[in-house]
Amino acid sequence: MGTRIGFVGLGNMGGPMASNLVAAGHQVTGFDLSDDALKALEAVGGARAGSIPEVAKDADVIVTMLPAGRHVREIYLGDDGILANVKQGTLLIDSSTIDVETARLVSAAAVEKGMLMVDAPVSGGVGGAAAGTLTFMVGGADEAFAKADPFLQVMGKTIVHAGGAGTGQAAKICNNMLLGISMIGVCEAFALAHKLGLEDQKLYDISSKSSGQCWSLTSYCPVPDILPTSPANNDYKPGFAAAMMLKDLKLSQEAAQASNASTPLGAQAAALYSLFCQQGKGDEDFSAIIRFLEGV
Amino acid sequence: MGTRIGFVGLGNMGGPMASNLVAAGHQVTGFDLSDDALKALEAVGGARAGSIPEVAKDADVIVTMLPAGRHVREIYLGDDGILANVKQGTLLIDSSTIDVETARLVSAAAVEKGMLMVDAPVSGGVGGAAAGTLTFMVGGADEAFAKADPFLQVMGKTIVHAGGAGTGQAAKICNNMLLGISMIGVCEAFALAHKLGLEDQKLYDISSKSSGQCWSLTSYCPVPDILPTSPANNDYKPGFAAAMMLKDLKLSQEAAQASNASTPLGAQAAALYSLFCQQGKGDEDFSAIIRFLEGV
Amino acid sequence: MGTRIGFVGLGNMGGPMASNLVAAGHQVTGFDLSDDALKALEAVGGARAGSIPEVAKDADVIVTMLPAGRHVREIYLGDDGILANVKQGTLLIDSSTIDVETARLVSAAAVEKGMLMVDAPVSGGVGGAAAGTLTFMVGGADEAFAKADPFLQVMGKTIVHAGGAGTGQAAKICNNMLLGISMIGVCEAFALAHKLGLEDQKLYDISSKSSGQCWSLTSYCPVPDILPTSPANNDYKPGFAAAMMLKDLKLSQEAAQASNASTPLGAQAAALYSLFCQQGKGDEDFSAIIRFLEGV
Amino acid sequence: MGTRIGFVGLGNMGGPMASNLVAAGHQVTGFDLSDDALKALEAVGGARAGSIPEVAKDADVIVTMLPAGRHVREIYLGDDGILANVKQGTLLIDSSTIDVETARLVSAAAVEKGMLMVDAPVSGGVGGAAAGTLTFMVGGADEAFAKADPFLQVMGKTIVHAGGAGTGQAAKICNNMLLGISMIGVCEAFALAHKLGLEDQKLYDISSKSSGQCWSLTSYCPVPDILPTSPANNDYKPGFAAAMMLKDLKLSQEAAQASNASTPLGAQAAALYSLFCQQGKGDEDFSAIIRFLEGV
Repeated sequence: MGTRIGFVGLGNMGGPMASNLVAAGHQVTGFDLSDDALKALEAVGGARAGSIPEVAKDADVIVTMLPAGRHVREIYLGDDGILANVKQGTLLIDSSTIDVETARLVSAAAVEKGMLMVDAPVSGGVGGAAAGTLTFMVGGADEAFAKADPFLQVMGKTIVHAGGAGTGQAAKICNNMLLGISMIGVCEAFALAHKLGLEDQKLYDISSKSSGQCWSLTSYCPVPDILPTSPANNDYKPGFAAAMMLKDLKLSQEAAQASNASTPLGAQAAALYSLFCQQGKGDEDFSAIIRFLEGV
Repeated sequence: MGTRIGFVGLGNMGGPMASNLVAAGHQVTGFDLSDDALKALEAVGGARAGSIPEVAKDADVIVTMLPAGRHVREIYLGDDGILANVKQGTLLIDSSTIDVETARLVSAAAVEKGMLMVDAPVSGGVGGAAAGTLTFMVGGADEAFAKADPFLQVMGKTIVHAGGAGTGQAAKICNNMLLGISMIGVCEAFALAHKLGLEDQKLYDISSKSSGQCWSLTSYCPVPDILPTSPANNDYKPGFAAAMMLKDLKLSQEAAQASNASTPLGAQAAALYSLFCQQGKGDEDFSAIIRFLEGV
Repeated sequence: MGTRIGFVGLGNMGGPMASNLVAAGHQVTGFDLSDDALKALEAVGGARAGSIPEVAKDADVIVTMLPAGRHVREIYLGDDGILANVKQGTLLIDSSTIDVETARLVSAAAVEKGMLMVDAPVSGGVGGAAAGTLTFMVGGADEAFAKADPFLQVMGKTIVHAGGAGTGQAAKICNNMLLGISMIGVCEAFALAHKLGLEDQKLYDISSKSSGQCWSLTSYCPVPDILPTSPANNDYKPGFAAAMMLKDLKLSQEAAQASNASTPLGAQAAALYSLFCQQGKGDEDFSAIIRFLEGV
Repeated sequence: MGTRIGFVGLGNMGGPMASNLVAAGHQVTGFDLSDDALKALEAVGGARAGSIPEVAKDADVIVTMLPAGRHVREIYLGDDGILANVKQGTLLIDSSTIDVETARLVSAAAVEKGMLMVDAPVSGGVGGAAAGTLTFMVGGADEAFAKADPFLQVMGKTIVHAGGAGTGQAAKICNNMLLGISMIGVCEAFALAHKLGLEDQKLYDISSKSSGQCWSLTSYCPVPDILPTSPANNDYKPGFAAAMMLKDLKLSQEAAQASNASTPLGAQAAALYSLFCQQGKGDEDFSAIIRFLEGV
């Protein structure tokens, strides 16, 4: 009859994820500050809780999906938080995208209290959350990963064990830093091609089969009329919003600064998305940065 | 009995390209400042000329493979140059990698004198030149492309018509600018992963299947022990030397400045390869920039 | 007979600062993890304490000089920390260079407990600390500044009230971010001049009197034989070490990310000092980055 | 009764410069494509010529003020150009701001034909041209400089001999690259200060007296209400237009690429001014880039 799962954070991502857990036969009790979010969970067969301790006390598994590291610290480590209220041995899955340092701090605190914990940030967006096709990048001990895997399989399609605590977050920000750099690189290549009189389709045909090939070009092409599914063909409606890319790039730079890594293009990509979002474009798809580069 | 082909510039690239034309049955007469290069051509069955006019006067096709735009201007436009000495209707193929402006200038002069001309820079390196597997990115009129194609097929495997005059050069620098950016992006992702305790293989497994995927990662991985064929497994022997990448990035920035394109990451990639080459590393493979980022 | 002052952090900076307070007639009790540092304080007439609470309990004024924000949080906010052990109304002066967020957090906690607090980071280096000529950039309420001013006058020459809590830190990182950018700018100008055959003295003569003038050029010139007092004339011995500049640039980027400011050159300056320090040059003067730019 | 001076290029800068030469008693014959410009010269007492050869044939001194290197090459080196038409020993003064390579090429050609030539770009803008207070940065042989100096003194206030041919251009682009970097640095410092709640006046008071001091801050402050004369107090009307700063930054990057200098912040400053101009802001003062950084 399923597992008793507590779910904290029922927003655009967390809501459909919780819903998929319900659909798989689990008993899901959710908490969120939004009454609408709680009603939505009830509508699909979940239960609502009035507080974190109420979510925590009977759960065998807890999943959290929160906006930032400070929320994760507060909700796990606070006096009325998760760690103070769960029973020993509870499996904790934090799917928030947060800084590596917080992920490791919270995980260490959880392990010290006898819990199993994984950091398991996702990629795949709202669409992937609804369809249950998310990718989970998972950091934590082997035992924790093994126990978490079946639940992650319900919410996602690709589940990768990246290593010990924090490596799920590390994998996500390394990948997304590379994505942000590649996307700007592709946009610059098209912007230059436009000025030089080289047609989009020609650049695409050439680079898609040679050393310039990358996902940003061949799966998410930032100019219209090349790939039908690109946000470029839908007036740059996200997709993956520029503001979300900026958030991930900032996390990468925070990690780079804290760990003494040198990431000059990552720093510049963060600066460019920051400038782009300053122009009020944070809600556009992140591939729309080509319009910023071209001043259109 | 083949076509009479003049070939100017018989260096590391031009030498084997000319050799492949000979092997295909053409009568190749070559010119180079190096006596060794001329001897090498004779050894495979070609002929030597003592001057540009001597190369030019009887040729039906001329191929040039020169270091930089200033050589192309001089050898095509000079008083003792190609245009002053060829017969009308000769097909001119410039395979040098040079600036777009010069390519267009020379092409316009050639067309005005009644020649057919294509700019046809290559990728694929010395290995591709020897094996006849180069990629040619070709700019020029349809008729010129059609006439050049059979000869390019002898020297390469992939022949792409990019558009009018200069678009061959445009395609190459747009692609290689993107390549330089992507490679540094991949190197920064690994450098950050190292500091965060994420294993190379894990980052590879994750990013190669998600939005960070790019040729620099999945066909030319800059850390050892992932892809057997990467220069990273051969102490970063090129491959594609950092100095050559710097040359292409400079050409991209020259074109961007002349055409008013904004390429902030391209500019930074050029600056980083410049710093890397300043440390005396121009002869290393361009993926060795990861060692620069990590200070090792 | 002077004020009872507790001083926490008696390193290269804190040691001479405490010594100047003793010399001005105050009763200084110090704490540090290093026994040598405590002995040095005793040698000039100060007293040693064995713990933070011991420093805190009788002090009328406490000065702290600590390496980073996490130390400040721990030493002020910890169970055995300053706030838990001082008497009400104590004046707290934190001269550490730390992140704005921590400065504001600690200050708010202090004010809530009935203390007066200022953040008062310094510039002027070890030499200025010994000579009592430091510049203090001070953030805090007017009353707190008024009470702190006489003590700061003992340790420094220029005392500036920058505004409310945290603005001392803000002023320091804004200034030092600009300094880092300017210094690299000056170094790039000389590096380019060298390649173009323009003599150092000529560039200095021209730019020092025109729109390129800046402190990094006219008070700290990064090439030798222009200003006798520059570290450039002393094999780039600091002065102000590159590692310290990197620390300040990282703080600026942390603040920029947290506050949504766009600082693209600040980000790049941080990346360049990071690369420079990765080459093992963190102990050199920050003006030595010209050698990195020139590959010498 | 003055010297016979030919003046080519009577635009916003050249017009008032020629006028000052007339006012000093010289016989000035001008050439420009604009009839209005020629009339303006006649109105102040100069004469008009109908062609370059007509300007050149009787002149003892020729001054040119042209938009870009390609015009300088054409007007000096063309078949109907200056060098083909002047008498031997004529003093040639090119006050255009152009690339170093062209300056050296033209100068060498002039010297070979027995002329004296200096490259003498200016700073000081239209106001300085009218008032005769320009700064001239002069490259050329000692004898050429000595002969040019009295004429430059008529048009300017500060005349600096930077070295041999081309060093006038080198000095200007090194200085202006530094200026562009410094200005963006100052703007970033204010942008960050705004976000951190540090008042403009406070940052100014602190940095103007410490290590962040620079001309962009203390003589041209990019925020209003600090320095009355700043364009910031006049809705960022130039002053020195962003498009002109971009031109100089591009020249610096062209020179850096050609000479193998590494100028990473110069490259980034060029990219940022390019982005700013892409937004249609090229006519604003270059200090208005603070509005771009802040998205206002």
